[in-house]
Amino acid sequence: MADTTSHKRRGGGRAGAAARRGSAVIDQMPWDPPINIDRPTEPLDPAGIEAIHDGAMRILEEIGVEFFNEEAIGILREAGCTIEGDNVRMGRDFVMEMVAKAPSQFSITPRNPDRKIEIGGKNMVFGNVSSPPNYWDMEIGTKVPGNREMCRNLLKLTQYFNCIHFAGGYPVEPVDIHASVRHLDVLYDKLTLTDKAMHAYSLGKERVEDVMEMVRIAGGLSHEEFEATPRMYTNINSTSPLKHDHPMIDGCLRLARRGQAIVVTPFTLAGAMAPVTMAGAVAQSLAEALCAIALFQYVRPGIPCVIGTFTSNVDMKSGAPAFGTPEYMRSTQMTGQMARFYGLPMRSSGVCAANVPDGQSVWETSNSLWAAVQSGTNMVYHAAGWLEGGLIASPEKFIMDCEILQQIQRYMNPELTATGPDEIALDAIRSVGNDGHFFGIQHTQDRYTTAFYQPFLSDWKNYEGWDVAGGIWTAERAHHMFKEIVSSFEPPALDDGIRDELADFVARRKAEGGAPTDF
Amino acid sequence: MADTTSHKRRGGGRAGAAARRGSAVIDQMPWDPPINIDRPTEPLDPAGIEAIHDGAMRILEEIGVEFFNEEAIGILREAGCTIEGDNVRMGRDFVMEMVAKAPSQFSITPRNPDRKIEIGGKNMVFGNVSSPPNYWDMEIGTKVPGNREMCRNLLKLTQYFNCIHFAGGYPVEPVDIHASVRHLDVLYDKLTLTDKAMHAYSLGKERVEDVMEMVRIAGGLSHEEFEATPRMYTNINSTSPLKHDHPMIDGCLRLARRGQAIVVTPFTLAGAMAPVTMAGAVAQSLAEALCAIALFQYVRPGIPCVIGTFTSNVDMKSGAPAFGTPEYMRSTQMTGQMARFYGLPMRSSGVCAANVPDGQSVWETSNSLWAAVQSGTNMVYHAAGWLEGGLIASPEKFIMDCEILQQIQRYMNPELTATGPDEIALDAIRSVGNDGHFFGIQHTQDRYTTAFYQPFLSDWKNYEGWDVAGGIWTAERAHHMFKEIVSSFEPPALDDGIRDELADFVARRKAEGGAPTDF
Repeated sequence: MADTTSHKRRGGGRAGAAARRGSAVIDQMPWDPPINIDRPTEPLDPAGIEAIHDGAMRILEEIGVEFFNEEAIGILREAGCTIEGDNVRMGRDFVMEMVAKAPSQFSITPRNPDRKIEIGGKNMVFGNVSSPPNYWDMEIGTKVPGNREMCRNLLKLTQYFNCIHFAGGYPVEPVDIHASVRHLDVLYDKLTLTDKAMHAYSLGKERVEDVMEMVRIAGGLSHEEFEATPRMYTNINSTSPLKHDHPMIDGCLRLARRGQAIVVTPFTLAGAMAPVTMAGAVAQSLAEALCAIALFQYVRPGIPCVIGTFTSNVDMKSGAPAFGTPEYMRSTQMTGQMARFYGLPMRSSGVCAANVPDGQSVWETSNSLWAAVQSGTNMVYHAAGWLEGGLIASPEKFIMDCEILQQIQRYMNPELTATGPDEIALDAIRSVGNDGHFFGIQHTQDRYTTAFYQPFLSDWKNYEGWDVAGGIWTAERAHHMFKEIVSSFEPPALDDGIRDELADFVARRKAEGGAPTDF
Repeated sequence: MADTTSHKRRGGGRAGAAARRGSAVIDQMPWDPPINIDRPTEPLDPAGIEAIHDGAMRILEEIGVEFFNEEAIGILREAGCTIEGDNVRMGRDFVMEMVAKAPSQFSITPRNPDRKIEIGGKNMVFGNVSSPPNYWDMEIGTKVPGNREMCRNLLKLTQYFNCIHFAGGYPVEPVDIHASVRHLDVLYDKLTLTDKAMHAYSLGKERVEDVMEMVRIAGGLSHEEFEATPRMYTNINSTSPLKHDHPMIDGCLRLARRGQAIVVTPFTLAGAMAPVTMAGAVAQSLAEALCAIALFQYVRPGIPCVIGTFTSNVDMKSGAPAFGTPEYMRSTQMTGQMARFYGLPMRSSGVCAANVPDGQSVWETSNSLWAAVQSGTNMVYHAAGWLEGGLIASPEKFIMDCEILQQIQRYMNPELTATGPDEIALDAIRSVGNDGHFFGIQHTQDRYTTAFYQPFLSDWKNYEGWDVAGGIWTAERAHHMFKEIVSSFEPPALDDGIRDELADFVARRKAEGGAPTDF
């Protein structure tokens, strides 16, 4: 293990043992979500923060956001907002008063309490790719629609890797399952193949209620226990510019009333659904998020809410979305400053426009993951497995991204920058003097097993050694690893009674017809 | 052009025109070395800075560094240092007094004054890969010894890309040229194929003097003009632990006496030639660099000196060097803090351990390039083209790295984070309202050609469009680009008389036997 002398042991015990109980295809770091010890990169000065804040507030005060949800309109009217049809305008005093009720940090406790995650403060957690309709792997060799088997395999990766801390949405849409019952089958797979925190799509009453019930069952919880603290979350996108659709608001209200967490992530592509200027796109994104969060705080003061960002730019030649660009990095950093200004935890993503797990996919995804670090992001969505602007999920990309995520985890270990006498190591330097080397000395022997990051996918052999071993490029190495992990996967422990109860619930709800598909 | 509205125009005029005169295989950004507007990432608190400084000073005071150079020993004895054989110990007062004489910023002016580079402050400049003995490209498909043709092709890339600001060492060692005359042929190639700042290897009197003379001739300079301001530089490595070899010190003394710049870059691999703890490796690296800089400042007060870092870790399984690791990033950031503490410009590198231009090569190199940004590095060596820990140069990797360098250049454009009324764009948001999009509006039309980074190598087409175009992965796209750039390359303008004078010099020095090869 590269990090066994980790600086913190939170949750290490049972989860660590579970990780060791699982297959040992690779020698990975233990479960230990990073604490972001870096000062964020902050491109905005106080006047810049004020300008973006004022822009967001004026959008809400002067232009308004459309809520296609009658219940929300009624609540916001009661709260004193100005309503014209679906258009809601709200004053900054109201927005700030409501947003101030949201906690700056909270936890989500999944069915395995050792996998509890902290959202907010300096905590960082990483989730799998969510919601691509398509799949690519090296064996298939082309883009194909997702199915349940692919989804299950990606869920196995989600569980297997200790650097993946939550199971977001479906890692690929299993379009071979009818939409009316898809949520039942996939949630069954998620809750049996993983024990990590997960989410419900806000796509209609039935889906949301079913998922909450299944998460409750899987945790062996009473309704009161379920509602006492967040056990799951939902993530919604606004429909930019300046609209919130019915099912998203409905789902959030349902979760809010049961004490579950909410992530609001506008998808403001600068130049398309938002101004071509990044500060404008950020201001609009904030306005769209804050008005929804204000609603949820009015309904349930103190409910955990996360402000998400998906502000990127389009390719002005084609209109296609671009990700992991310099503009994306800066908008993420700016949003981080604003999230701290509002006292809200923040979500961003690991993203790229590349179509295959090649060099481009790495620089784009790496840019976005390090922008998450620099921005002080708490919750990193799509942190592993995303290709083609989110239209493709790939297991090779998943595994490659996990190598970057582990490096971020290692990077945040304060031991790397410790400067005590043992680290300055004057006696060791004196003992080696002007000749010889440090390989054999006691100072090295005492530390060498844990001194440095040990990659699981990077190949540090010299060219000749690498060539003799097959001369395999990164993506192909990841592919072999994928096959091994999936074939030797052991699901996390789950009580048989709970498994049966979940299966019964799925069968009953299927018999009832699942969820309507005309939403 | 993605960046034609750039925030600064320094040197833009003629160089920009020259770039446009050249071939237009790709639509690249103009020559415009980035100004690092970010606050550096600083893992050390004041006590940490003091601990590393004290460690470095105690190494110099109590352990000493060996100088295998009689002239240096004599000078340092005269300066009051404690000499025992080759071992030199020096007090911190002397070190700090000498180091304080070095400028915190200076310029290097190559034969084309529009390619003048600023070293220090918030300036960042990028140089090509330097000194690999081997070469890999996709057509050859394996690692082969470098030759002059490969070297010339990599020099063409060095000249072609506006994001490469200086021509470092040989981009690959042309081992088909005898070592006695290699410097003559390669410098002729460098000075005719590029017009960017370059360096002399400190490998013996003849080589250093020949290179200085050729740079002087290429610039059309008198000896006085050559010596009046830096026209070139040398870069030396110490022989860690705690040794300086004869030719490196000799070369630096020769350049110092003629007013040229010096970069001192210890190569302290933690766990091998330096302590296994990063702070110790950094302290040792600083000690090795500072004692040499103290010598040069004593000899020539005020001579430009750069403190370099090459502190990384080894793979403790194999002893092989690792690059672009979390430890590398942190040591680079710590060295940046120390360089600012000493008031010296800083050099770091773009590095990886990968053997081919695959995903691993990108995350390792990207980590190191962004660590250069985060550390406040001024001079980024090996910024494009490096593989296998510096043992291989690759044109595909060169071009891939240039895409990352361009993104850094773009990232540093303050327009990305501007927050004036035009950027907040409230009127544009109002005009679009809750419906429609921003594609067609005037605010977008006025800005779309320059609003976003335009990659030259990243492919932002969707999967289907990319597939129809051949489904080509990044490295192969770079390979095709390499062939096109080289085949259509136009060398920069050079006066025929100067070219003849250079050729005559080379011929004369070859007739004299070149340089001895028994150094």
